[in-house]
Amino acid sequence: MMLGILGGMGPLAGAQFLLRLTLLTPAERDQDHIPAVLWSDPTVPDRTEARLRGGEDPLPALLHGLRGLEAAGCRAIAIPCNTAHGWFDQMQAATSLPILHIVDSAAEDLRRQSLEGATVGVMGTAATLAMGLYQERFGALGHAVITPEAGEMAELVTPGIALVKSNRVAEAYAPLAEAAARLIRRGAAAVVLGCTEIPLGIAAGPTLPFPVVDTIDALARASIRWSGRSPAELSSPAR
Amino acid sequence: MMLGILGGMGPLAGAQFLLRLTLLTPAERDQDHIPAVLWSDPTVPDRTEARLRGGEDPLPALLHGLRGLEAAGCRAIAIPCNTAHGWFDQMQAATSLPILHIVDSAAEDLRRQSLEGATVGVMGTAATLAMGLYQERFGALGHAVITPEAGEMAELVTPGIALVKSNRVAEAYAPLAEAAARLIRRGAAAVVLGCTEIPLGIAAGPTLPFPVVDTIDALARASIRWSGRSPAELSSPAR
Repeated sequence: MMLGILGGMGPLAGAQFLLRLTLLTPAERDQDHIPAVLWSDPTVPDRTEARLRGGEDPLPALLHGLRGLEAAGCRAIAIPCNTAHGWFDQMQAATSLPILHIVDSAAEDLRRQSLEGATVGVMGTAATLAMGLYQERFGALGHAVITPEAGEMAELVTPGIALVKSNRVAEAYAPLAEAAARLIRRGAAAVVLGCTEIPLGIAAGPTLPFPVVDTIDALARASIRWSGRSPAELSSPAR
Repeated sequence: MMLGILGGMGPLAGAQFLLRLTLLTPAERDQDHIPAVLWSDPTVPDRTEARLRGGEDPLPALLHGLRGLEAAGCRAIAIPCNTAHGWFDQMQAATSLPILHIVDSAAEDLRRQSLEGATVGVMGTAATLAMGLYQERFGALGHAVITPEAGEMAELVTPGIALVKSNRVAEAYAPLAEAAARLIRRGAAAVVLGCTEIPLGIAAGPTLPFPVVDTIDALARASIRWSGRSPAELSSPAR
């Protein structure tokens, strides 16, 4: 059964998703791996601009990618971009294929790490946080959610994400790691890297000394479970 | 213009290709990157088995992938698998899209490294070497080609490639690095990592102390040039 990956948002995160999907799949040879088609369209209009500042609507481009993945014969969809999940309901309404929700994958990863009910810090784009993508679903599961303050978003998180998108991955580590550490100091037991650029930046420096949920890995594990396999117990590159 | 990537052979190499394509593309934001569709079908019958031991023909699966990439709207094809280029002529005859030849990309990378006319060692699958994929095209460019001996193939190169395909990437370093060093000792000025699993294994250990051509990076650079951009001058992860 072929997995459809609606990627390109950003393209590095989409490629890293397929890399981690492969490394987390128990396999002895090529033919043991999960067939996948990765639709990497980095020209999808900026999700944060659309949601917060009236920028061009990304939905038509997202639906075009979904149509391409359907035509290729995919049987489920994974979207390694948290902010794009702001259009989840419209996408799910437009396809009969199941779309694996990245926030549900992150919640499952908290359970895997025995962090049920923990207070969690959530880093993400300004749009992801403003839409409450994590706050709502995590609240229903009993997780209190702490998010960066406005100044931390402006000075640390948003610039860190932009550095990854411009291929300056190593420079992204310091601001992103600092923002994560501040969430822990404010009482979080773990930090969800709730934008798929963030684990790429965090992996470029020293391992953080507290639990994190790498949403690239979390969605990869959910995809492997969807395929009927059990994911390997490998550390996340962001740990 | 969308690039079609016929990947999955192996899946880690295909994902790494898209990762390196992204990192080697000059970009300030998502929308500066090259749109791509990566058809990652790891179930394509084993190319080496087919060529050397009468195993199942991979051509129908390769053509199925090409059809999928054509239907997605791709305008050129990159295939990050050296051995699959044994079916290059049949694939090129079956599509009007240009297929970027990985051996031409490797030759261009030798020129980029000012190694025109150098004696080069070529590592690859037993099938790639038996088909003479490199020997013929490189010979025409004035490169003498040295390849591993039968015992080195059986004890170092073939097991190293298999280790990467089974996700045991770190273990692949020692045998692959040893095979490369022996080619240098026999007179090669550089070593072409002529199977896309090999750079993954070589990147898992200390940098080799001689020039190498990473065929994942070489094909990524050729793809970026095809898109009308100039690739960034980043070191290969296998260096």
